[in-house]
This record gives sequence, structure tokens and C-alpha cells, in this order.
Amino acid sequence: MGTTQLESVPEPKYWHLKTVLSEALDQDFAVGEVLPNERELAARFGVARATLRQALEQLELEGRLQRRRGVGTTVAPPRVGVDVGSAQHGWPGEGADGWEPVDATETVPSAAAVRGLLGTAADQPVHTVRRTRVTQGQPVAAELLYVPAASVPGLSAIDAPAGPARARAVLRELQRLALDGQDRSVELGSARADDAKELDRLPGAPVLLVTTRYFTAAGTAAVSVATYRADTCRLTFGDTGDVQITHDARVAS
Amino acid sequence: MGTTQLESVPEPKYWHLKTVLSEALDQDFAVGEVLPNERELAARFGVARATLRQALEQLELEGRLQRRRGVGTTVAPPRVGVDVGSAQHGWPGEGADGWEPVDATETVPSAAAVRGLLGTAADQPVHTVRRTRVTQGQPVAAELLYVPAASVPGLSAIDAPAGPARARAVLRELQRLALDGQDRSVELGSARADDAKELDRLPGAPVLLVTTRYFTAAGTAAVSVATYRADTCRLTFGDTGDVQITHDARVAS
Repeated sequence: MGTTQLESVPEPKYWHLKTVLSEALDQDFAVGEVLPNERELAARFGVARATLRQALEQLELEGRLQRRRGVGTTVAPPRVGVDVGSAQHGWPGEGADGWEPVDATETVPSAAAVRGLLGTAADQPVHTVRRTRVTQGQPVAAELLYVPAASVPGLSAIDAPAGPARARAVLRELQRLALDGQDRSVELGSARADDAKELDRLPGAPVLLVTTRYFTAAGTAAVSVATYRADTCRLTFGDTGDVQITHDARVAS
Repeated sequence: MGTTQLESVPEPKYWHLKTVLSEALDQDFAVGEVLPNERELAARFGVARATLRQALEQLELEGRLQRRRGVGTTVAPPRVGVDVGSAQHGWPGEGADGWEPVDATETVPSAAAVRGLLGTAADQPVHTVRRTRVTQGQPVAAELLYVPAASVPGLSAIDAPAGPARARAVLRELQRLALDGQDRSVELGSARADDAKELDRLPGAPVLLVTTRYFTAAGTAAVSVATYRADTCRLTFGDTGDVQITHDARVAS
């Protein structure tokens, strides 16, 4: 009973090294500190470069290390908890939700998956609102919010033709509708080039994709696809009971 | 207005190849079909092997491709939506939640992060319940549920000393407590060797870690750390309004 079954599973060499490195990070390095280069580290731990690289990749996936071009490998600060649940039961842009409208264009979404979620045909125009979310001074997410033109018939084409003002106009029209409900999913993805740039990542970096569908009585009124940095973010979903506020103080970890 | 700003961002070569490959997967390949080998593919698309490999990695991150040792690269089926929200507002093991108890041991969690979430000291014993979740015949998640011995003082040491029966005994004692609320977070991680084996993945494969804290009036009664396959799973969070049932039929996508 004293030990768990976990120890009976043989671990690959890089995995053991990862554990050793992880402890070294806790004890010998401060957040933001640059690690010695791969050659030095491999020599220090008596492992092959390939093994070291695998271990470093693991630690990067787990958010312990950051690798940046021109800087090297640094010790990452703890991930930031970003609320994607309880605080967002209204329409996008309602209340102070940390999102900044950037732009809005009218187009036909090229992704069949988005058209499928919206239930729009391949020739139906859709307003695409671009927003970014900043937490503690860092860009943490980029969003494309798809609003079929049919959802916001009152939107004038000449009023605020572009930029943040246009984005706000779309959001304002959306907020006139009676929100019936929403659902949300989270999955692993890779950063598109434009999102990567905005989030200060390389294209293809692992990201968490949060897809939200907003429903009115008439059906799906809007779909949001938000790309969160997977290296720095922990997505939090608030307490679904009625004791939300009581426990909020404990959420920091 | 006709085009979006997105097109103005230059995309790296592998990114363009990824888009081309993605369309080819839609049109020319069936789910489960084995792709030609890297040399053939590189020749067919007129790119370097390194570029091809980057594009394949992207598609794997996005869940479009699966790479398995001894099989090669196959076209992945669409990700399975796995509910981690609305259906689980009770204690673990209450109702038919798709989880199977595997084992339970009594130990001191080695991870300081887990002790921090539980608020237990480094020498306090904790029951560790291991469960697995199977959806549509596939293992999708492995869970470690940490229950401090102090949370379940009525648990007898001699009753059901090991295995699934022991796990069920811990869950049963937990369910006697009045659940006050819970919160949940999702982040990117890498599969531990034991979880990887259970989930039919290689150690270090990207996974989605779902951490749930269960609260009673006395504080944190239990913490669950569930490891979901990131390649095959899309985590869904049910509608938070009261129209849950109405829209459930639309969740399939």
C-alpha cells in the first residue's frame, strides 16, 4: 500500500531526464532565467543531445520552459488561469470580458467546418469579427467571431465601414437578440500564421481552440473560434454550483 | 470588404503545404487509409522532406492524421466530443459517467502541485483512485483522483484492500459528503508513461489535462487530474442556460 502502481511502469530515458531537469528547474533556476545551451546541458547530465532535446520538448509542452528565437530557452512563469466559463454567459462583448474588438469584415468563411456550425450555405455572407484578449498585459488569445448577415439584419453597411468601430457595431447588433443558450468545446490545434503573429508565437505552435456556439430561438446566431496560447494559459471553468463567489479566492494556484 | 485581412499575412512554406494536404485528405483519402510514405509524398508535392514533415506534424496536432508505429500515417476519424462539463456536477462515480474504477492506493502524492491543490502537508496520506474513461469503445482518458484520508475518515483499511473494489469503496465514502461546488481547468500537457500506455500513445504525446477540484463546506475534499487524448478528443462543455436538452442534438458536428 505504501507505493503506487505507477512506479512499476518502465520509463524511457528522456522521461527520467525530464523529471531530473524539472527538479533542477525548481531548485536552481529562477523564472525568466536562460538555461545553458544544449551542448552544456547534455554534458552536465551525461546524456545524448537527442535525449536532452526530447526532454526539453516535454518541458515546453508542460509549460515549464519557453523557447524563443534569439533569446534561447528560459524558465517559464506559472501558467495564467484564464476564465472561459462562468464569466461569459452573455453575448460576446457584453460586460468587461477582457476582449478587444480589432476589425470586422464581411465574407464567406472558407472553412467548411465553420459553415457547418453556422448552418450557412457556401454563398451566404458572414460578418467576421476579429478580437484579441489580453490578460496581465500579455496577449493570450485571438478570436474570430462569425455572425451570419442574416443574424443581424439591422446592421447598416455604411455605418462604421471598418476597424474596431465596425466590430463594435456588429457586436451591438448581436446583443439586441435574445440569447437562448451557448455551448463550448476545447481541443488541441496549431496556430494559424496570423494568430501566431498576434500571440507572439511561431506558426504551427500548439494552441487550445475554444469553439463557442451562441443560440437564439431561431438557431445558431454566432460561432466564436478562439485560439489560446497553450504554453502560457490554463483555461478555467468556474464553479457551476451557486457557491461560485465563495470559492473564487481559492482558484489561484 | 470582399476579402479578410488574413490573406495579407505571408505564410511559411510548410503551412501552405499543410493546407494543400488538408484538401487532398478531404478529397482523395478515406478515414483510416494509410498515406504514402514521406519520400513519395515529398516527391508528389515537390517539397523537401523537412517541409513535408513539418506539415504532417501540423496535421497531427490538428487531429487530421494519426501516426502509429508499425502502421504508418493514417487519416484520422473526426475527433470525438467528450462531455467534461454539465453531466458531471456530482461526485466522481455518481451516475453513469463513463468512468471505470481501476485501483486505489494510499500514498503521499509526490507532486507538490497536487498537495498544493489539496492543501495537504507533505506527510499526509492521500487515497489515489485510478479510473479510465472509455467512449465508443476507445480509451479516451485516464484519471488520478486524490482523496485525502481526512476527507473519508469512515473508510476501513481492511474492507476491500485493493483493486476496483477498493476504488469503489473510496468513491462511496466520498459520495456521503455534501458537495458544495467544483471548478475545473484545462491545459496542455504531455502523457506520463503509465497514462500513455493506457491510452495507447507514446510517452510524452500531447494530452489535455483536466483538473477538477471538489469542494465541501470544510474545503477541498478531492482533486481529480484527468489526462485526455488530445489527438482523438474534443472536450465539450454543455449549455449553461436552461435549454440544454433542446440544443443537444446540434452538438454533433
